[in-house]
Amino acid sequence: MPSRPEPSEVRCVACIGAGVIGGGWAAHFLAQGYDVLAWDPAPDGEVLLRDLVATAWPSLQTLGLAPGASPDRLSFAPTLAAALGAAEFIQESAPERLDLKRELLAALDRAAPPEVVIGSSTSGFAMTEMQPDGPGAARMVVGHPFNPPYLIPLVEVVGGARTDPDTVAWAAAFYRAAGKYALAMARELPGFIANRLQDAMWREALHMVAEGEATVAQIDAAITEGPGLRWPIMGPCLTFHLAGGAGGMAHMLDHFGPALEEPWTRLAAPPLTAELRDRMVDGCEAEAAGRTIADLVRERDAKLVAILKALAAADATKGQEEGR
Amino acid sequence: MPSRPEPSEVRCVACIGAGVIGGGWAAHFLAQGYDVLAWDPAPDGEVLLRDLVATAWPSLQTLGLAPGASPDRLSFAPTLAAALGAAEFIQESAPERLDLKRELLAALDRAAPPEVVIGSSTSGFAMTEMQPDGPGAARMVVGHPFNPPYLIPLVEVVGGARTDPDTVAWAAAFYRAAGKYALAMARELPGFIANRLQDAMWREALHMVAEGEATVAQIDAAITEGPGLRWPIMGPCLTFHLAGGAGGMAHMLDHFGPALEEPWTRLAAPPLTAELRDRMVDGCEAEAAGRTIADLVRERDAKLVAILKALAAADATKGQEEGR
Repeated sequence: MPSRPEPSEVRCVACIGAGVIGGGWAAHFLAQGYDVLAWDPAPDGEVLLRDLVATAWPSLQTLGLAPGASPDRLSFAPTLAAALGAAEFIQESAPERLDLKRELLAALDRAAPPEVVIGSSTSGFAMTEMQPDGPGAARMVVGHPFNPPYLIPLVEVVGGARTDPDTVAWAAAFYRAAGKYALAMARELPGFIANRLQDAMWREALHMVAEGEATVAQIDAAITEGPGLRWPIMGPCLTFHLAGGAGGMAHMLDHFGPALEEPWTRLAAPPLTAELRDRMVDGCEAEAAGRTIADLVRERDAKLVAILKALAAADATKGQEEGR
Repeated sequence: MPSRPEPSEVRCVACIGAGVIGGGWAAHFLAQGYDVLAWDPAPDGEVLLRDLVATAWPSLQTLGLAPGASPDRLSFAPTLAAALGAAEFIQESAPERLDLKRELLAALDRAAPPEVVIGSSTSGFAMTEMQPDGPGAARMVVGHPFNPPYLIPLVEVVGGARTDPDTVAWAAAFYRAAGKYALAMARELPGFIANRLQDAMWREALHMVAEGEATVAQIDAAITEGPGLRWPIMGPCLTFHLAGGAGGMAHMLDHFGPALEEPWTRLAAPPLTAELRDRMVDGCEAEAAGRTIADLVRERDAKLVAILKALAAADATKGQEEGR
C-alpha cells in the first residue's frame, strides 16, 4: 500500500455530504488552512455550503485563522469522484441512515486511493455495521463531531471490527493536527461516550415533559442557569470531586452515595462497589494531576467569572444590535 | 401574623450552617449588599467561613458588587438564637441528613418570628418530609442552590404539602431581588429538576466506569470539549432544536426519534407519542420567542466564541501565574 502522509502534513481534505455537519467540517478545515473539496448531491448543496461557511467565518476569524486560511480554498466538486481527486483525508457526513452510509462508504472505498483514511461523522452507528467487507474497511474510522464542528473541539475516534488499529491512531493524530480534541476510544460502544452522557440527560428531560413534571423552558433554564455553567470547565466527575469539600470524590461518594438509591431519574444506578468507588476516586486524582481541591476551586471560580462576563457581554452586544 | 417585608426590602439574612454551601450563600448575600448573620456548630466554623468569603470576594468584585457590599457586614453568631436576631430571611444549609434537617427546621421554627421565611438548601429531600407539623410549616420552602452559590445563579424553589403557596411566591421574588435565577416549581418532584437531569448523566457515567467502557478522564473530556460547551448557552431542548437544521425540534424528533430506541445509556426513553412530540416542539418555539433557527445559530456561535476565548484567556493567566 502506498504510504500515508504524516498526519500533520495533510493539506487537502474532502468533505462528502455538506449539510449542517459536513458543511461545519468544511468551515473548520478551511479555517485551519486546508484546501477543501466538497460534494453533496442536494441541488442547492453548493449554495447552502457557501452560506454556512460565510456565516461561520466571522466566528472563526475572531478565534484566529491558520496562516493562509481562506474560504476561497473551498471547491465544490460536480461528482463524488472529482471531490476525491487530491484528498489526503475524507470526512463522510451523509444523513444518519444505515443503508445510505453503507452504500456511500463502499462507493468511497472503490473511488479513493487505498491509503486515504475515511472518517465518518455518524452520531450513532458502529463502524462495524457500516464498513464494507473488503480490505478497504481497514482505513475507515468513526470521527464523530459535535455541532457546530467548527467551534466544538471534540471528535470521538473509534474503529470497527475490520479497522486497522494504526488507522485509528493516524486519524486521532490527524484530527489533533487539524485543531480538534480527538478522544480515541479503545473499543466500540453504542452511542460512543458523549452521546451516551447527553442522551441520558435528554431521555430524563423527555420523561419529565411527558409526565408534566417540568416544561421545556424550565428544563433548559435548570441547565443554563445551573450545572450547565460548570460543564465547559469541569466534567461531571471533577465537578463532583469539588462537591465533597476538601475530601474530594472520596468524601462525596461516601456522603452522597446513598442518594444513588433515590428515585431521581428513571435510570437505575450501578451498585457503588468498593471497586467502583476506587476507580472514581483514583480517576479524579489522576485528572486533577496534583492540583489540590483549593487549586481547583480557584480555577473553577476564575473560569466561571470569565464565562459569566463573556455571556453578559455577548447579550449586551446582541441587545445593542437589536436596538439599532 | 405580622406582615412580611416586600421581598426587595429585605436587608438582613441569616445563614444557618456555614460550610461549602451555607458559606457560599453568605458570600453571595454579602456581595448583594445584605447584612449576614451566620451560625455553624463546627468549632472552626467562623474561621472556615471567613476564609471562604475571602476566597470568593475577588470573583465577586470582578462580577460587580452591590452598593455598600462588604465582607465586614458578616457577623458570626455565638448561638443559633443570636443568629436569628434581626434576620428577615433564613437560609438553612445543614449537612444532608434527614433527621438533622428535621430537627433544625423545628428549632428554627421555635426561635424565629413567625413571618420570617425559611429556605432550605437541601439537594434532595422534599420539604414535606422535613417540615414540622405546626403552623410554622407554612413559611418553609426548599431553596436549592448549585455550587458555588455565589456564582451559579440557579435556585430551585418549591414548597411542601404544608407550605403556604404565598410563601413560595414570596421566596422566589426574594431570591430574584437577591440576584439569583429562581426556578419556582409548581409541585414537589424527587431531586427537583436540575439534579434529575445531572444525575441521569452522572449515573450513566458511573455505569460506564463500572463496566470499563470509559475512564473518568475520558468522560470529563467528552463533556468539557463537547456538549458541555453549549450548555451555558442553551439547555438540552434548545440545543437539539438547532440539531434539526431549519426544521428545528420537529425535524429533529422525526429524524432522530428512532435513536431513542437505541441502547445508548441504561435509561429507557419514554414512548415518543404525538403528544410528547408536540409538547417538545411547542416548548422550543415558546422558548425561542420569535427567534428563527438562523438567529439562534448566530447567538449560539457568538456565545461559544466568547466562552472559548474566555476559557483560553483564563488558562493563559493561570499559566503565567504558575510560571512566576
